Order: sequence, then structure tokens, then C-alpha cells
Amino acid sequence: MTTTEKLPSRSENFSEWYNQLVLKAELADYAPVRGCMVVRPYGWTLWENIQQALDRRFKETGHVNAAFPLLIPMSFLEKEKEHVEGFSPELAVVTIGGGEKLEEPLVVRPTSETIIGYMYSKWIKSYRDLPVLINQWGNVVRWEMRTRLFLRTLEFYWQEGHTAHATAQEAQEETLRMLNVYADFAINDAAVPVVRGQKSEREKFAGAVHSYTIEAMMGDTRALQAGTSHFLGQNFAKAFGIQFLDWNNELQYAWTTSWGLSTRFIGAIIMTHGDDQGLILPPKLAPIQVIIVPIFKSDAEQGPVMEAVERIRKELGAFRVKVDDRAEVTPGFKFNDWEMRGVPLRIEIGPKDVAQNTVALARRDLPGKAGKSFVPQEGLAARVAETLETIQNSLFERALAFRKANTYDPQDYAELIEVVQKGWALSWWCESDECEARVKEDSKATTRCIPFDEPDGEGKCIVCGKPAHRKVYFARAY
Amino acid sequence: MTTTEKLPSRSENFSEWYNQLVLKAELADYAPVRGCMVVRPYGWTLWENIQQALDRRFKETGHVNAAFPLLIPMSFLEKEKEHVEGFSPELAVVTIGGGEKLEEPLVVRPTSETIIGYMYSKWIKSYRDLPVLINQWGNVVRWEMRTRLFLRTLEFYWQEGHTAHATAQEAQEETLRMLNVYADFAINDAAVPVVRGQKSEREKFAGAVHSYTIEAMMGDTRALQAGTSHFLGQNFAKAFGIQFLDWNNELQYAWTTSWGLSTRFIGAIIMTHGDDQGLILPPKLAPIQVIIVPIFKSDAEQGPVMEAVERIRKELGAFRVKVDDRAEVTPGFKFNDWEMRGVPLRIEIGPKDVAQNTVALARRDLPGKAGKSFVPQEGLAARVAETLETIQNSLFERALAFRKANTYDPQDYAELIEVVQKGWALSWWCESDECEARVKEDSKATTRCIPFDEPDGEGKCIVCGKPAHRKVYFARAY
Repeated sequence: MTTTEKLPSRSENFSEWYNQLVLKAELADYAPVRGCMVVRPYGWTLWENIQQALDRRFKETGHVNAAFPLLIPMSFLEKEKEHVEGFSPELAVVTIGGGEKLEEPLVVRPTSETIIGYMYSKWIKSYRDLPVLINQWGNVVRWEMRTRLFLRTLEFYWQEGHTAHATAQEAQEETLRMLNVYADFAINDAAVPVVRGQKSEREKFAGAVHSYTIEAMMGDTRALQAGTSHFLGQNFAKAFGIQFLDWNNELQYAWTTSWGLSTRFIGAIIMTHGDDQGLILPPKLAPIQVIIVPIFKSDAEQGPVMEAVERIRKELGAFRVKVDDRAEVTPGFKFNDWEMRGVPLRIEIGPKDVAQNTVALARRDLPGKAGKSFVPQEGLAARVAETLETIQNSLFERALAFRKANTYDPQDYAELIEVVQKGWALSWWCESDECEARVKEDSKATTRCIPFDEPDGEGKCIVCGKPAHRKVYFARAY
Repeated sequence: MTTTEKLPSRSENFSEWYNQLVLKAELADYAPVRGCMVVRPYGWTLWENIQQALDRRFKETGHVNAAFPLLIPMSFLEKEKEHVEGFSPELAVVTIGGGEKLEEPLVVRPTSETIIGYMYSKWIKSYRDLPVLINQWGNVVRWEMRTRLFLRTLEFYWQEGHTAHATAQEAQEETLRMLNVYADFAINDAAVPVVRGQKSEREKFAGAVHSYTIEAMMGDTRALQAGTSHFLGQNFAKAFGIQFLDWNNELQYAWTTSWGLSTRFIGAIIMTHGDDQGLILPPKLAPIQVIIVPIFKSDAEQGPVMEAVERIRKELGAFRVKVDDRAEVTPGFKFNDWEMRGVPLRIEIGPKDVAQNTVALARRDLPGKAGKSFVPQEGLAARVAETLETIQNSLFERALAFRKANTYDPQDYAELIEVVQKGWALSWWCESDECEARVKEDSKATTRCIPFDEPDGEGKCIVCGKPAHRKVYFARAY
């Protein structure tokens, strides 16, 4: 671990700050294949913690996991017209298997609606088989042109839920239930405030009737789509023949949903909380919650300090704790190193602390002296629990305040185009594709979502002035 | 769930029994791509339990997880001569990406030594960076011609550990440490007795110096390679330039290992423990450990029975318990259904049990009355814990006795060829490729391993009569 080079400044060069930080914190690395990434152990442990937080919620809402094949016959994708149009340009195609040219090329799954739809058509016969509530954790490949670690890579990791229901209402409820699961996770575990809302026709999933999203504001005020949930209507059921005998013994098409959250979310965490010193990880998801740094200058000091360190490490067994006992670097180097890696809480223990039965606590979310306190060793576990909770809440509040401070209510089109250069705009919109396209052309901002928590009403479209009934967020996005 | 058709008899048609059972128990299904499988929720939950049991052991031995790319440049495989020869015939090759022909084809990983070796060469600079102890959970693709669900599929799921060390001795120790982790898991969690040993030159991993294996005897006496661990020497370090500065500041090549265990192990569990009624799952890994079947004939009976069922379900909260409250099928149907699915323990609760504060317990591993007992509701949780442990142990002992009963010590070559038709042979072998090849040609039996627990000595090769120093297991294998 050599972390002597300084990070680029976050405020001056957000993009380069992000790229360097991902590498320096050893979250991920570039793979030898263009656009692919290696998720390193520190990054993968963060992802495992995200997986656990989500998987628990999936199981609480009645879902089970399964695994569907990586390779999908090309003809499957062609069965749903919008779906194939959306994904065709992004496919990786296997044409050779076992040394021979394949009769039908196989695509490496970009998403699994088609192959899962095919299997559901085999498994579902009666209303008694419904609902089917399956999730899959896995990898998918989309041949993206402009890639960035975590945010957009050729291969990425995600979960994709695929459910089938007897009625449209049930499927619609499921779609929103899972969007709420994502929001709950983002807010309570990742400390990432998100806006829940509906995607426009232009921005929705290829093959969906309606798409819903959680959108988060990054530290440079850009938006990031952090999770999506789709009501697929009967589109895939009709394409793949997912039919069941209903209560009246009549054959019906099922109603399906799909929903996904990916390793992209790691990008959201980095860009929501990080600062010039590096990462700041929310305590609930941090691979290491508490780093203990022993401080001593002589062999005589080392013994008692390490004894206290070991005792305290054991007392903090309920947390994810690591002791940095490297001999080859200084305590100051260690402070910087773990700050860069975003560990929420640091405990320093030196000879004075041993003598006074105290430790120094340093909060990662508050710089320098503001985050530092000297506390008794007695009752430390309770204090650590409390402090981690304070950090968790404070990260959320800070990010929420940032989003509010950078969300605008422009009064006319010119102001809209101006404010989306520095934040989000929440404006009336007539919901026409033309107005959406014009904003994008003039400003690179897209519609992010029609938020649930804004009441419908009567307004004038910020673009064309025609009557509008709902507000939408416009923003530049990742 | 319709499970009315009877399974083929295990003793009469083991192969068809296996195929049907995997489908009927809803462990897996055939995918629309030849040779690929869908792992259904019941099978995947079993795999998740296997993953947890292994992952805990990996972390206890200092390993961390990470994720490396699915797609590997074709040229990477060509860097290690034996490796490419071993895997070339089995590759799935991506030749088109984003609508364009790729300059260099990418192979879908059949295993990850090459791409991980490449990354290690970037990360490892000094002896301080060693050892690197990384594991990956994921999917791989090998273009197999003859496939069977779980046992051999084009895509399968596994973990692959890849470690790098400063000395040959450390790497060799790691190789055996992980083989022992596999054996510990197989014996103690899966109740699958395994023989640990070394693979022959002919049977070893393509690119390894030495390969080690755990071999299990299936219910038809065939052998199944259930997990392997490879000492790779400096082969991949030299192919990919994994070099480090040692304590004397001299540049050295690292020593590497790899080790893997796959969804194939599910096949081993099925074929080790199952019987004519279906699966028998070891309690420690079973997705459902206890199935509760309420029994009542009238509405008047239903209330008190369901009340007792619900109370008992809560009391058994420490176990993986399911209540089968389906109204559309009879208790008898449910008994058969859950027996077929291998749930280790059944609890029946009827009106008499309610009146007498008892329940009926039925062990899956003992047929009919032998496995049935009527026990008080009081202290049920302790009794369930005890019974599950008894079942776990009894499954192991039974399988071990079966292996011993079907392992032979043939006195000459003719007898060797005869006994490998009905079991394993443990015989002196001169370790020549010719003798190994001759046995295979004459009997389809291969060498499974040179077992650790047989002492070296002086014997005569069972094939050629020349001096031999070690014994080997010969067996037909999956």
C-alpha cells in the first residue's frame, strides 16, 4: 500500500478525483479488456455488505434467489420489439463454442427478462403457481463505449428481480414495493438521500410499460440513477407465452416486473460522501468501521500500548474493527491512509492514553479537531456504537442539505438551462418528448424522474408553456 | 408443485433416478441453450448454504473475496502452454462486441488463473505484498459435449481461490490447507466422506505442478471429484511476470496456488445420500431443516391444530422451518412431497397431538416406523436439535460404511478390472502413464488419487508388476 501521492482536489477536478480515488483506495482496478474492471477485495467487501443489506430486505418481502444462464439465444431478445431495439447495440456475442461456429449466436446476457420469461412460461401453469418472486445475483455485459469504474463498465455486477403475478394491480404493487426497498436501503444503510419517481417514456427501460427510479445527487450536483423498478405489463408474458389458468379456469397472460441495483451504487456512495481526503463510507456498509492505530516511540512503550490495543479490539468485537500494526509506516501515514479509505472512525492509543485510561476518537466525517475527542476506555463500545450512528445520520443529513441547496425552481426556460449547469431543476413539464429532447440538446440535462412526493397540479411547461400536470427533475446525469 | 409421478428406482436405474430427481425436487431445470442449467430457488438455497459454510472457512483462514472479469483475451490463455492445451477445446468465444467484430477474440473464462495472474503481476511488487489470498465466487463456461445437471454443465457456479506466496513451501502449505478446508466442509457439513489425495500426472489440472483432490463415492459406487487444490509452482508467475523484491532486494518469481469447488458438489450430495423416495439432505445444509405438516379433518379441528403449529413454529425459530399449510393436497401427499425434497425432519401435528401435548417426529434417513417417534411438545427445540445432529452423523456413517464395503483390494490385474465394475480398487501402482492408460482402456476406470492416509511402502504395480511405492484408487468416475 503506497498512498503517498495526493489525490486531485475534489472541488477543482471532481472527475479526476473520482478516478484516482477508486484506484488509490483499492476499490477497483482497470482490467486488461477495454471497459472491464476488477473489483478488488476492499471494494468487493463493500459490495458484499450492500448485497447483505438488500438480500435481507428481499427475503423479508418474500423473494427467493435462483440462477439463470449467462448465455441467451439471440432469437430470444428479438421476441420483444422494444427490448431488442434497446439492447442490440450493446451486445457481446458468442459465435464459437468448443472450436466450432455456432448455428445460432449466443448473447452474453445484458439483462435476463427474456431467458427468465422463457423459463416462467414452462413453470407457471395455474394461478396457484403465482406470484413467482425470484431474484438473481450475478454479472451482466453491456458493450458500452465510454466507461468508468463502477459507473459504467462492460461487465458489471447486480441483482435483478423478476416476478410474475396474476393481476396488473399486484404487479404494479410489487414494482413500487421494490422501489421502496431500494429507497429504504439507500437512505438507511448507504446514507444516500434519493428521490423516488417515474421515468419518462424516453428514459424508461426497453420493454417496460412504466419504469421507476431512485435518483441521487452526486457531489458535483449531477444526478445518478441508483436503482430502477419496472412494471412490464404483459409485454414479456406475451412474447414468451407466460400463461396461467385463472380462478375461472380461463387462460390468462401473467403480469411481470423486473428491478435491479448494481455495483454502480458504489459509485453513488463515493460521489455522495467523499471529500478531498478521500472516501467517507457510511458506517453500516463500511468494510472496516473502526481502525485502531497504536502509537509508541520505544520498545518500552510498545508493550503496554499493544496490550491496551488488543484488549480494546476484543471489547469492540461487535464491530468491524482492524488494528493497523504496520511497523514500516508512521502513525501520521496511517491516519491519512485510512482517511483516504473512508473508515468512519479512528481510535488512537498512545502511552498517555494507557496511563489515563483514555483513547482518542477521530470521526472521518468531521475534519481535524472538530471530529476529535478524548474519551475514557470505560464504556467505549457503547460510545463507538453511538458515534457510528451519529456519523451515519450526519452523512445523510449533509447529503440531503446539499441536494436541497442545489435544487432550483427556475422561472423560465433560459433560467432552466442556466441552473441545470449547477444543480437540479424541479419544473412543470408537459410530458412531451419534444420538450424533453430540446432541454437535452440545449443543456445536456435529461429528465430524471417525475417525483412521487410532488403533488399533481396545474402549471405551465417550463419549455413550451403549454398546460402541465406534473413536475419533473431536469439534471445532467451520470 | 405436482409430484404425483413416481421416481425411477435408484437401484435399478441410478442415472435416470438422478435426472428425474433433480427436476422433480425443483433443484434445477434444463435451459434453452444446450448443456446449460437453471438453478431453481430450492437448489440455489442449497448452494447459498454451501457458499456460507465455505466462505466462513475461507475467511477464517485469512482469505478475502474479489471479482475478476468474465471476458479474457485469447492471448492470455496461450501464455501457459499446458493450460491452453487443456482448455482450448472447451472455450466459448466472443467475437462480436457492440455490433463490431473484435480485433482480438475474448474467451468467456473457463477458469481465471490467467487474468488473475495478470492482475497479480501489477499489484505485487515486494515481499511485503505477499501472501495474496483472494477467492472469487462466480460463474465459468466450459464447452462440454456430454452434460448433466450439476455434474457437468456448460456454465457452472463455483469459487476459485488464487493465492501468491514468497516461497514454494508456503504455497505448498496453502494448497494442502485449502484441500483440508474442503475435506472438513465435505465431512462435517455435507456428511460426504471423502478421500484426500494427489492426482496423477494425467489427471492433474492443466498448468499445475501438483493437483490434489477430495474424492467421494456415489451411491452407484462411482467416484466423483468433489473439490481440487493445485500447487502451480512458478508456472503462471513466469507466464505473467508475477515478480517481487525479496528480503535481499532481489527479484523473484512468486509461487501460486488455485483451488475450486463447484455446484457439482450438489450432485455429490444427491448421489451420496438419496434413496428411492428422493433426496436426503444433510441437516446442516438443508434449505428446510424441519417441515411441519398440520393434520385435521374439520374446521373444528383446524383451529386448535393451527394454533399449536404456529406456537411450535415460533419455538423452533433457531432452525430453518416451514409449515406446509396447503389446503389443496392431503397430508399423505405432503409427506411424500417433502420426503422427495429431502427435508431431514418432519413434524406432524393433529388433534390427538394437541390433546396430548405431543407431536409426531419422522426422520427422513430412516424409512417408515423406524424413523418415527411420538414426543412431548415440551422441550421440543432441544429434541429437534439433537435429532438433526443424529441424522447428520448417521448420514455420514452410512456413506462411510458404504464406501468401505465397496472398496476392494484386488490380487491381480484380472480382479482389478472386475472389481472396478462394482466399486473402487486400492492398489499398488508404479505411477507410469502406460499402466494408467491400460486400466482406463480395459475398464473405463481412471486413477482417482494417491491417498494421503495410505503409507508409502514397497509393492508391485497391479498392472505391470514392477516395483511400486504408493497405492492409488482406481474407479469409474463422473
